[in-house]
Amino acid sequence: MRISELADATGVSIPTLKYYLREGLLHPGRSQGPTRADYDDAHVERVRLVRTLIDVGRLSIDRVREVVTALDLPPESRHLLLGTAHDVLRQPSGGPPPDGVIARITALGLPDCAGSPASTQLAQALSAAERAGWPISDATLTSWYAAMTRVADADVVPELAAMSPADALHHAIIGNVLTDPVVIALRRVAQEALSAQRFEARDS
Amino acid sequence: MRISELADATGVSIPTLKYYLREGLLHPGRSQGPTRADYDDAHVERVRLVRTLIDVGRLSIDRVREVVTALDLPPESRHLLLGTAHDVLRQPSGGPPPDGVIARITALGLPDCAGSPASTQLAQALSAAERAGWPISDATLTSWYAAMTRVADADVVPELAAMSPADALHHAIIGNVLTDPVVIALRRVAQEALSAQRFEARDS
Repeated sequence: MRISELADATGVSIPTLKYYLREGLLHPGRSQGPTRADYDDAHVERVRLVRTLIDVGRLSIDRVREVVTALDLPPESRHLLLGTAHDVLRQPSGGPPPDGVIARITALGLPDCAGSPASTQLAQALSAAERAGWPISDATLTSWYAAMTRVADADVVPELAAMSPADALHHAIIGNVLTDPVVIALRRVAQEALSAQRFEARDS
Repeated sequence: MRISELADATGVSIPTLKYYLREGLLHPGRSQGPTRADYDDAHVERVRLVRTLIDVGRLSIDRVREVVTALDLPPESRHLLLGTAHDVLRQPSGGPPPDGVIARITALGLPDCAGSPASTQLAQALSAAERAGWPISDATLTSWYAAMTRVADADVVPELAAMSPADALHHAIIGNVLTDPVVIALRRVAQEALSAQRFEARDS
């Protein structure tokens, strides 16, 4: 299909598609002469992925480029693959977390995973909260980890084992980008329900 | 204190402080003449809040302005107060969610809360995932809600009842901004641990 048809199929304007091509978020079409290129279903799928990462995941253009680069050259191991997914989804943050936080994660029995993207992300989030005057107790952290294990149980599905590395990576990235907002919204709904239970009788 | 001392106390540069003053994120100091104003501890605290909302919460300047406006005029009811906190933390999203999604939330026994910010956020997140080709089953949603109730149990603390409305609102906003990243990071760590359990033996 022509670029105008790719625009129709995806709902993304031609100037934006040209921007994605220039920025390396979208692979070039097959050249059909100096001013024409041919696009296919893989381009449609890639444009949809880029839109989801930008609109829902609020990833920067640089992060989206990292995602598509990883998708084009996925690691072979299922487990390394998840590390790659976690790494591209991680908000860039200032410097390595202090040793004390990592020791605390390990002491709690949370998997340290030897500096994996996930454990680094956790250590950085804990440090940021503590620096801002909001320390999180060991009891809360342990309880939250149990809760998030229940959430993750629906994420790490057996079907992943049968997927190609590129498909499994796509699944892990898109699954997290699309469902993190659902998980956070459920936290808010649960806060509201508990607040109603605990405080509403006194207020009214 | 002078603006230079406020800069020293908060680690935020004078031009940035002046920008916060112009944008209404920081209330003016007490005037001490045409080119001098006096700042106090409330300004230090407010600047720290603004930094946390921008750096950790990645809120836009407009959203930060909404937060500080709400903090200066908090609702009296503990329960409405949480709605205000949820409303300012919500990512602006395109239009109201379709009725079908709201009916589904209600059918699952999740509190609908008559269009509260939290339930609107959930409906929008579910719609966005579905539109992007990632429907979430009722079983997963119910299981995730149970998990997030466990997370929220540590959020809705009895101490809130004894706080002033402004302090309780501050607590709800800052608590969510600082700990959402911890909760999401714990999800990644749990995914990694489950992935190692379920897939690592086959890979190596």
